Amino acid sequence: MKKLFNSRERMADDMIDGFVAAYPGVVTRGRHPRVVRRTVPKSPDKVALLIGNGSGHEPIAMGFVGPGLLDANVVGDVFAAPSADLILEGLRDVAGPAGAILLISRHDGDVINGMEAAMLAGDEGLRVHPILMYDDISSAPKGQEDDRRGAAGTIFVYKILGAAAEAGMSLGDLITLGDAVRDATRTLGAALNPGTSPLTGRAMFSLPEDEVFIGMGVHGEPGVARRKTGPVAELVDYMLAQLLADRPIASGTDCTVLINGMGGTTQMELLTVFREVDRGLRAQGISQSAALIGSLSTTQEMAGFSISLLVPTPQMRALWCAAQGTPGFPQIHAGAAQ
Amino acid sequence: MKKLFNSRERMADDMIDGFVAAYPGVVTRGRHPRVVRRTVPKSPDKVALLIGNGSGHEPIAMGFVGPGLLDANVVGDVFAAPSADLILEGLRDVAGPAGAILLISRHDGDVINGMEAAMLAGDEGLRVHPILMYDDISSAPKGQEDDRRGAAGTIFVYKILGAAAEAGMSLGDLITLGDAVRDATRTLGAALNPGTSPLTGRAMFSLPEDEVFIGMGVHGEPGVARRKTGPVAELVDYMLAQLLADRPIASGTDCTVLINGMGGTTQMELLTVFREVDRGLRAQGISQSAALIGSLSTTQEMAGFSISLLVPTPQMRALWCAAQGTPGFPQIHAGAAQ
Repeated sequence: MKKLFNSRERMADDMIDGFVAAYPGVVTRGRHPRVVRRTVPKSPDKVALLIGNGSGHEPIAMGFVGPGLLDANVVGDVFAAPSADLILEGLRDVAGPAGAILLISRHDGDVINGMEAAMLAGDEGLRVHPILMYDDISSAPKGQEDDRRGAAGTIFVYKILGAAAEAGMSLGDLITLGDAVRDATRTLGAALNPGTSPLTGRAMFSLPEDEVFIGMGVHGEPGVARRKTGPVAELVDYMLAQLLADRPIASGTDCTVLINGMGGTTQMELLTVFREVDRGLRAQGISQSAALIGSLSTTQEMAGFSISLLVPTPQMRALWCAAQGTPGFPQIHAGAAQ
Repeated sequence: MKKLFNSRERMADDMIDGFVAAYPGVVTRGRHPRVVRRTVPKSPDKVALLIGNGSGHEPIAMGFVGPGLLDANVVGDVFAAPSADLILEGLRDVAGPAGAILLISRHDGDVINGMEAAMLAGDEGLRVHPILMYDDISSAPKGQEDDRRGAAGTIFVYKILGAAAEAGMSLGDLITLGDAVRDATRTLGAALNPGTSPLTGRAMFSLPEDEVFIGMGVHGEPGVARRKTGPVAELVDYMLAQLLADRPIASGTDCTVLINGMGGTTQMELLTVFREVDRGLRAQGISQSAALIGSLSTTQEMAGFSISLLVPTPQMRALWCAAQGTPGFPQIHAGAAQ
């Protein structure tokens, strides 16, 4: 599997070059070249929102920098968490008197480096609060939610906190809201075919031609179960049952669905998955609105998808649907005729 | 290579089910279930804009239905042009007293069926004008532009005519504008790895591990040249030279770049390609703004990309940047700080 790059060493840097050249009105580099921040700085009384993460999963999270969403993204090497020092550079760039929230998708390297960066920032007098994000039900059992990995459902946290911070919410209220969004979100993924690591040029796992992995992580972490391939409807019914067992949703509830493609899965396939999720929810008396369907948190050209379910409060729903102006976050369509 | 579907026969129909269930405020089915149209009908004095095309290339064109862009898309089977009768159904749904433009991306089946549909519509008293779109410089030599295939550069025509029609432009002026956008656009693509046909489950072509195909068509039509893989900068320099030889751009001109991913190419790779295009243009004294980078016209999980260059008039540029509200067309960032 061929990949397009100039050199393995410069992959992330060349990508950032292209990104800031494409969207100069929205994003620019921070003082450190691996910090991507808004071109128009936020007002000093807005809480800053940022995340550091390994690259190779775009558009998450670099593509989410801009009005109504993140203030900065600290870009690590491919599949590698940025160092604490690098994240600290990002915090110095955007944390002001109103404080900052450092979002951390729960993976070991990200947690260790992120927590250290938050501590170092505190030592410098910056008010930084980390929020750990975890939503993948396959990575730890019910009752041990805070041992779970971050997966595509973190997108709900990004967007809702981004809109809330833009609207002037205080640091304390943002922390409460972020925890509530995370706790109201569950994700389960299925992988069909491996992606290729740009670092090695090799497939990230292997899987028989007639099998699907349930619960594959974003870096190719092993899944929890294998299933035979079959009609999408069967696969989705199985996954929905797992999700609803982990966090029951009462009949009559309206939820928000995110179908995330892992990179090599077509829009036709994702829409077919969505069809079956919508059908499966309706069969339980659950409605959905303001869905998001797209390849947003990717693992190179891995084929597969995840289903994330959020049971939003009215406040969360309004913030989820709020306008934003980033290069990589799609427009949300609330559901009513426009 | 596994694909997610319920049955081969229902692929396109299941996809449309998912699409209208996800975005009920924006899109709905027409009288025929393979016609996808706006939920809120256009005003009768607006010229209707529609296209019929094979599915399997999403988000183009179904994802472009909505405010500020298309009025309807007639969805064919995977990689197959819809029949003239089916396109006629779409024309009946949306063509009103102001007339309609049927956009046709130049491929044999699409041209034959589209032209016949326009004729049949005329017989019924509908005022329908077809516009043929062609931009792929690899598919016929300079001087024979109207023998070329439609490629990702058609996206410039869709968007600019969509915004113009929404703003109330007359049928005659839209035809002139559409021809002008097409004539100001050139595209060249490069394929790295094949996609899998969902119809056969097989790779659509084969290519040695160290080679790239230049000029691959959207259905896997053979390219015109093979090159050894190497740094992206070299590949882009070669492709830019071909594009600028076909349609020279004077130093001092501002152009608009579209980097289209073919499906299995990551955002990191597309942004790296963009970096090199920006560099290559600047080396010739050409600037760029309002770029679009994404996987918009796809061939399943084929890896590769195309470069499209538009030299816009100020009118075209304003229409390109105009707001729209579709599920699948990204926000354009004009370039100035927002």
